[in-house]
Amino acid sequence: MATEDTAQKAQDLLKDLRRSIDNFDAILIHTLAERFRCTKAVGEMKAEHDLPPADPEREKRQVARLRQLARDADLDPDFAEKFLAFVIREVIRHHEAIAAGEQVNEWR
Amino acid sequence: MATEDTAQKAQDLLKDLRRSIDNFDAILIHTLAERFRCTKAVGEMKAEHDLPPADPEREKRQVARLRQLARDADLDPDFAEKFLAFVIREVIRHHEAIAAGEQVNEWR
Repeated sequence: MATEDTAQKAQDLLKDLRRSIDNFDAILIHTLAERFRCTKAVGEMKAEHDLPPADPEREKRQVARLRQLARDADLDPDFAEKFLAFVIREVIRHHEAIAAGEQVNEWR
Repeated sequence: MATEDTAQKAQDLLKDLRRSIDNFDAILIHTLAERFRCTKAVGEMKAEHDLPPADPEREKRQVARLRQLARDADLDPDFAEKFLAFVIREVIRHHEAIAAGEQVNEWR
């Protein structure tokens, strides 16, 4: 049946797209893990040298750069900016915990 | 001077770490762009076949999988779950816009 064929094709395509989405999610999780390893090192260095956890000038440059990268990749730059803010909030939470001498990975 | 050397080394290491962070951010932005290309295709298919934008069963499986991937990569699984929720909120916003026949990339 033509209609069944179409429905089956749609199901197959959906499955295929979701497999790609799952792969992209694995890339995102691993890249975020590696990014946090870097920011953890930054946080330890900042705590050691008594530097403030947040750095507004650096963040301004990061926002401008990510917005441009997003535009070039056809991604909504407002979303890219919200995404960076979301990640940086978590990083600052870690840095404050490091400065306070807490163990960050309490979940382990 | 030993103190100046230490400060210089710290500055160099900070610069180095930030260069890595910038590279990881570029990976994240491009991966998110590609992920949204997939979810856009899913959204168009869902609109065509009158399927609901959200899929709680699929999301439950994604959350469990990403929490495990995060644990294996030494990333806080709660953060991974918040991250997925953040991305899915944006995806659902896109799907609803597609279903309503709106142009999603209004920013262009």
